[in-house]
Amino acid sequence: MRNVAARCLATARQGHQVAVVVSAMSGETNRLLKLASAIQEDPNDREVDVIVSTGEQVSVGLVALAIRAAGGKARSFLGHQCKIVTDSAFSRARIVSIESQPIKDALAAGEIAVIAGFQGVDERGSITTLGRGGSDTTGVAIAAALNADVCEIYTDVDGVYTTDPNLVPTARKIERISYEEMLELASLGAKVLQIRSVELGMKYGVRIHVRSSFSDQPGTWVVPEEAAMEKVIVSGVTVSKDEAKITVEDLPDVAGVAARLFAPLADANISVDMIVQNQAYDGTTDLTFTVPKGDRKRACEILKAKVPDLVGQAGDRIAFDDEICKVSVVGVGMRSHAGIAKTMFELLAKDSINIQLISTSEIKISCVIARKYAELAVQCLHEGFALSQPPSERPGV
Amino acid sequence: MRNVAARCLATARQGHQVAVVVSAMSGETNRLLKLASAIQEDPNDREVDVIVSTGEQVSVGLVALAIRAAGGKARSFLGHQCKIVTDSAFSRARIVSIESQPIKDALAAGEIAVIAGFQGVDERGSITTLGRGGSDTTGVAIAAALNADVCEIYTDVDGVYTTDPNLVPTARKIERISYEEMLELASLGAKVLQIRSVELGMKYGVRIHVRSSFSDQPGTWVVPEEAAMEKVIVSGVTVSKDEAKITVEDLPDVAGVAARLFAPLADANISVDMIVQNQAYDGTTDLTFTVPKGDRKRACEILKAKVPDLVGQAGDRIAFDDEICKVSVVGVGMRSHAGIAKTMFELLAKDSINIQLISTSEIKISCVIARKYAELAVQCLHEGFALSQPPSERPGV
Repeated sequence: MRNVAARCLATARQGHQVAVVVSAMSGETNRLLKLASAIQEDPNDREVDVIVSTGEQVSVGLVALAIRAAGGKARSFLGHQCKIVTDSAFSRARIVSIESQPIKDALAAGEIAVIAGFQGVDERGSITTLGRGGSDTTGVAIAAALNADVCEIYTDVDGVYTTDPNLVPTARKIERISYEEMLELASLGAKVLQIRSVELGMKYGVRIHVRSSFSDQPGTWVVPEEAAMEKVIVSGVTVSKDEAKITVEDLPDVAGVAARLFAPLADANISVDMIVQNQAYDGTTDLTFTVPKGDRKRACEILKAKVPDLVGQAGDRIAFDDEICKVSVVGVGMRSHAGIAKTMFELLAKDSINIQLISTSEIKISCVIARKYAELAVQCLHEGFALSQPPSERPGV
Repeated sequence: MRNVAARCLATARQGHQVAVVVSAMSGETNRLLKLASAIQEDPNDREVDVIVSTGEQVSVGLVALAIRAAGGKARSFLGHQCKIVTDSAFSRARIVSIESQPIKDALAAGEIAVIAGFQGVDERGSITTLGRGGSDTTGVAIAAALNADVCEIYTDVDGVYTTDPNLVPTARKIERISYEEMLELASLGAKVLQIRSVELGMKYGVRIHVRSSFSDQPGTWVVPEEAAMEKVIVSGVTVSKDEAKITVEDLPDVAGVAARLFAPLADANISVDMIVQNQAYDGTTDLTFTVPKGDRKRACEILKAKVPDLVGQAGDRIAFDDEICKVSVVGVGMRSHAGIAKTMFELLAKDSINIQLISTSEIKISCVIARKYAELAVQCLHEGFALSQPPSERPGV
């Protein structure tokens, strides 16, 4: 708390108006969730949000006290005081609007506004929370509402890296990255920023600076694409081990099959990620897709129950594999460089890594491979695309 | 939490609408105060209330969950949702009004309203707290606002006793007691109910039932005086060891001396309790009074600094005694019984307990005696007034 206070005061003394968004103390949110789940399992409950939001409430009070104890002026704001209005989707609410006048008044009075992250209030005045990492989203939303110069996000790492430094010791801190790339990196497993905070930053053009709580070194700037000084081809390599693969074989190659297959999964709130349909042969085709690993068993059961004509009464046309991972390369530069996919496949082939599934977007190529090759694949791609070099020194593809 | 939920549901199933006021879990308020005081000593701070009020916030969420887990309907309310409006005296705020429509709506919808005790919100929307035991006050205030049949206060004792059962094993649970008597008992050291909750109950005619959380036995009813079935003469004996005695000797017996003496103490927020002025003799008089023990030293210093002409430059006319206690008998019946004081003095004299100071009110007689006689005095008075007998069997005085 004292460190946060010191940082706020240092910034204020440089002549800035400072609004700081604070999250709960380490472990506190889990402690509170445990109290609630001891009584009731369902975490998507109005009352669970009442309980869990106290973590941030304690933090803002303590930070405001610490700022004043260090000689500054400060005032805390809870979600219902800011006022951060959300929808009523408890535990995963989305911000609808911010009535920021109370914050502006505090700033105008020379106070540091200390704002509770992760929480809001719905139209009826019920407390809501924004989901894991929601304080990032609060921060960016407040920055947008206040038209702030920058939203600095302090975290326990010193920025966004070209890949997980635990896997690849030569991983390099990225100086500047576009929102689009950051979104791909975030959703693919770089757990530095909550995805929605980046989406929000992109929507409102908020410049985000991800940096370390423990140092004064600059971290990674997440900025609009045109502002990125260095147009690199590939900015990062990520790996996700959270998915499983399901294949349905011998599907009739007629219109409407895919829709019938995926409808019951959508109804059951199972999010399907990659989908690949084979070229039809002899009037039948195969369909392969990935789902979150925790949902794989349920997905197979739902298909057996809902579309037995497609997957067989006993589900005998379903095959699955839990031992997979998804390795991806991300970069806005690949829009104009056709050769990235080819290079990626060659690099994996050189290390004898078999590709099971491929999906591509404008700025990303993902391959599903056997889980046991995850680390090897990341290392070979990171090296192959020369990501440990400064961007200017990387060879063209 | 489950016990509270079960009790609420049992009451609801008897056909009652139920609003329950919940306090923090045991030890939680102290834990939160400690977090705050580690950063800043002053507990009378807007931000400390933000922190401390989370204890009740967690409790209401858990109780609401527990009620639903047990099959009931429930909705939690925080101070700013109820809405309990207070003044802005942080850490000791007083309730100004309750906008109870949200609670009434919940009750009308068949929900149990689970209300956070101890907290409110001031006109600016800042969170406030009501001071130690504030949940009692919240309970009575909510009962008044809802026009409730009764305010049941669940505590760790099973009612109000004729004296401290730890001192006198034959102490008897009081079945019915008037607000006035309860106020005297509460302020004199029976720590069962927060004084303000009793004042509020008296003001709005809320019938209060103080009872045990751990049993279904009836406890003590605190009710308007006319409703008290049994007009007993003495209802209880209390003792307080929290005061010290100060005597200023040889004061000039002229008008305005007392005012000059007590003004600087009032300015320093030192509350003076008993005041006794001796009959003047030779143009001078003595003035003896009691103050909270913790303030005794400060009081003497203030007098020396502010009115040296009254107490002497070196304060040599001030005498004090920290080793005192105040023993009191309380009862509305003594209004019409002149003999109570005489009996009290005789009982103390019989045990050779010297009385240092006497003060009386309509329903109370207090004597300051040496601290070492505290327990002896309580026992002799309790026995002397036959308080261990049922009220109907007590002999007249």
